[in-house]
Amino acid sequence: MAKQERALRTREALVNSAAEVFDCEGFSVASLTTISSRAGVSNGALHFHFASKAALADAVEEAAERRLDQVTQRGTEDPNALQCLVDATHDLARGLREDVVLRAGFCLSSDQSYAGERDLRVEWRRWVEGVLKRADGDGTLTESVPAQDVMLAVVAATVGFEVLGARDATWLSYRTLTRFWQLLLPRLAAPATLDTLRAEGVHGPRAGNAARIGHQGREP
Amino acid sequence: MAKQERALRTREALVNSAAEVFDCEGFSVASLTTISSRAGVSNGALHFHFASKAALADAVEEAAERRLDQVTQRGTEDPNALQCLVDATHDLARGLREDVVLRAGFCLSSDQSYAGERDLRVEWRRWVEGVLKRADGDGTLTESVPAQDVMLAVVAATVGFEVLGARDATWLSYRTLTRFWQLLLPRLAAPATLDTLRAEGVHGPRAGNAARIGHQGREP
Repeated sequence: MAKQERALRTREALVNSAAEVFDCEGFSVASLTTISSRAGVSNGALHFHFASKAALADAVEEAAERRLDQVTQRGTEDPNALQCLVDATHDLARGLREDVVLRAGFCLSSDQSYAGERDLRVEWRRWVEGVLKRADGDGTLTESVPAQDVMLAVVAATVGFEVLGARDATWLSYRTLTRFWQLLLPRLAAPATLDTLRAEGVHGPRAGNAARIGHQGREP
Repeated sequence: MAKQERALRTREALVNSAAEVFDCEGFSVASLTTISSRAGVSNGALHFHFASKAALADAVEEAAERRLDQVTQRGTEDPNALQCLVDATHDLARGLREDVVLRAGFCLSSDQSYAGERDLRVEWRRWVEGVLKRADGDGTLTESVPAQDVMLAVVAATVGFEVLGARDATWLSYRTLTRFWQLLLPRLAAPATLDTLRAEGVHGPRAGNAARIGHQGREP
């Protein structure tokens, strides 16, 4: 039992270490020796758990997929579907800032030298499509705006934040996401729900006393 | 003179071939032999023009930068700064669809295995910032929307279209860009100019008889 637990911990350390190295160097350049030594294990232990670098990348993507599922599941808590979308983008941005496994999983989706089975951006797109369909159905999305057009804009912008954020974390900041939603929500929300929506998200650091989106002023 | 011209043509063929290979495989995996044989020249000719793979990538980025300059220069023709921005995003998307050099130049900007001197996404961001400052100054941008927030949304979305478009060209289609602007322009444009703006761009395939953005209906 203790042995099994140790094996699980070694595997997890290898997945984290691989995510760090893929995140810094990309898949093709990453060396298995760097990954194992960063995890504090031997090359032999690495090969016991993973037959190849591709198997390791697959494990990173799988772990990242589970974390993306957590983001989108938490993003279904609010009864207002548009608020769910706002909250999930904040959670995703925080995850990409703080969690190297999630970041590496997204990076691997566009790494030409690694053709994995998963594509986290496609999974994110599917979730955004679903939640907007819900917003369309329950009338929180304004009638004059097609849900599909909103999906295009939101998925493109969040993927842009993710890619630009890899070089400059400002793109993934709480403030950037809040400003994005302050811009977009008045165009998307049905007039009756606009005043109840929080561009800063309901889980955000200033969620308690933040201004509602209808009342933000012009920046200096 | 003929010899010099031949040398220039060989150099150009190598830059195009390198762009194709970088675009497909990424910088680190790309082989110089594949690049030279695809250009129809010897390895020796490649090394006569370029000392290293990094020098070749630098030449691709330089050529891509010139093409981006053409996009943004053409995007200053319209007296309405917001229309300039719309037109330039359409031109950029068309360029990324059709021109492998421009596409490879943008890709190299986020390739972890190649640390070049240029970053086309940063150059694009600077241009978007400038044109929005102009729109803010001349009153085509509505007063209630900070130019900096519009910059964040437009740069993130266009970078998203670029990255997603590398796997699925629909993201860079004329229709996708038009729908993006149909969504955004009513939130950005000062009421007096909204009716004069064309979400489909003034250079687009249907520019002659396209509907103005104020009057689009809900999609089926």
